[in-house]
Amino acid sequence: MQTFAFSPIGVLRTPFIEKFGTPRQGHLVSSAPASLEFSTSAPAEAWLSGLEGFSHCWLITVFHENLNSNPPPKIHPPRLAGKSVGVLASRSPHRPNPIGLTLAKIEGIRGREIHLSGVDLLDGTPVLDIKPYLEEADSAKNAEMGWVANAPWPKTEVRIHADAVENLKDIYRTKPPPIDQVHFLRLAQETLSNDPRAVADREKNTRDGDLRWFWIRLYDVDCGFVFIPEGIEIRKIRPALLLK
Amino acid sequence: MQTFAFSPIGVLRTPFIEKFGTPRQGHLVSSAPASLEFSTSAPAEAWLSGLEGFSHCWLITVFHENLNSNPPPKIHPPRLAGKSVGVLASRSPHRPNPIGLTLAKIEGIRGREIHLSGVDLLDGTPVLDIKPYLEEADSAKNAEMGWVANAPWPKTEVRIHADAVENLKDIYRTKPPPIDQVHFLRLAQETLSNDPRAVADREKNTRDGDLRWFWIRLYDVDCGFVFIPEGIEIRKIRPALLLK
Repeated sequence: MQTFAFSPIGVLRTPFIEKFGTPRQGHLVSSAPASLEFSTSAPAEAWLSGLEGFSHCWLITVFHENLNSNPPPKIHPPRLAGKSVGVLASRSPHRPNPIGLTLAKIEGIRGREIHLSGVDLLDGTPVLDIKPYLEEADSAKNAEMGWVANAPWPKTEVRIHADAVENLKDIYRTKPPPIDQVHFLRLAQETLSNDPRAVADREKNTRDGDLRWFWIRLYDVDCGFVFIPEGIEIRKIRPALLLK
Repeated sequence: MQTFAFSPIGVLRTPFIEKFGTPRQGHLVSSAPASLEFSTSAPAEAWLSGLEGFSHCWLITVFHENLNSNPPPKIHPPRLAGKSVGVLASRSPHRPNPIGLTLAKIEGIRGREIHLSGVDLLDGTPVLDIKPYLEEADSAKNAEMGWVANAPWPKTEVRIHADAVENLKDIYRTKPPPIDQVHFLRLAQETLSNDPRAVADREKNTRDGDLRWFWIRLYDVDCGFVFIPEGIEIRKIRPALLLK
């Protein structure tokens, strides 16, 4: 069958630098900001005219780090402990065509700048299209939701150790991320509250008898955390060692 | 910027053979059936596993008859008499990347066959992806909808002349469409109730003093109608003269 080629209209700027920790859905991280950096040649200002009256929009994106052209036909969703479903019955990024669909909140538009929140996508994600959210067309009444209905997202309590708060203050004195400290901590907590580990990794919380450390990167800041009986504890925050 | 090429997973079979009359949104034509014809090599049965529990899905499609790579940045929506908005503030098919997003109802899945309804797309539309509709991720609460909020779809009364009903009976005796007669008439009425004419054509209802005829094609049947003071009247139904 004919193939179709698309040039992205721009790329998203988000806090999520690595796949690990990137939220599984936008509504799970309402505090996650994003902006769209249009291609320089795009007539973005005209394209966006009239979008300012909408509160939400769709982002149609490329899962650019999942370009395997022949992914397995079934996947293991993170919230179905071990069971598999067909890729087209899931929102997994490992799809026949690696295209993403995210409902984002529009925080503001100024000229060719569009600011969004609730975005579950990697920094640098190519955007193919933006569409306004129309309740009349996009909202199903009394929708049935199959396997998802019985599989709520696990919520993990996320604590922040006093050391990590001190670490963050240091970082904000030297090279602050583009959101304020309170917002940063909320973003880290919200991101981790859904347990970023793959299902297969959930039992491996210790290593050689010690608590195992995990790290997520938000902007150019690394957050180190461990699993304790109460949930997750962020124990260390430091500038990213290796920037991509 | 890098371009991305996608091979459709299949094509949609719908009643809409020509652009004229193809509904502007899926929710406007709940009676419009569709099915997806997967590419022969697609492992469709595995891909769809688990989707049978969902009532609705997203279709991400190619507007394959709108492949102009440089469309105007603003368009005239059919329900905004003459005013223009940016393409990214609209659902127009004339987009920088001609990608469509339709919420469809799942009527049934059997093996690699998926039957849908409420589909606003041309017969033969390439499908890039199907995703389950997840209310938690896809439904915005208290959404604001800009210019759309003040522009309800015009609803036109659609009458069916007794001659047209007789015409249809003849057609069902010889070469019946794949839906029953009552369903066919409902589909024709629903399709026309949104006035398929472009804004610019709405004042041209007569020609040389006579009522002007318009035609829409559903499956391989042509429906001829005129505009009367009460709305639209379907006056003639006949086998399509020229099949594509």
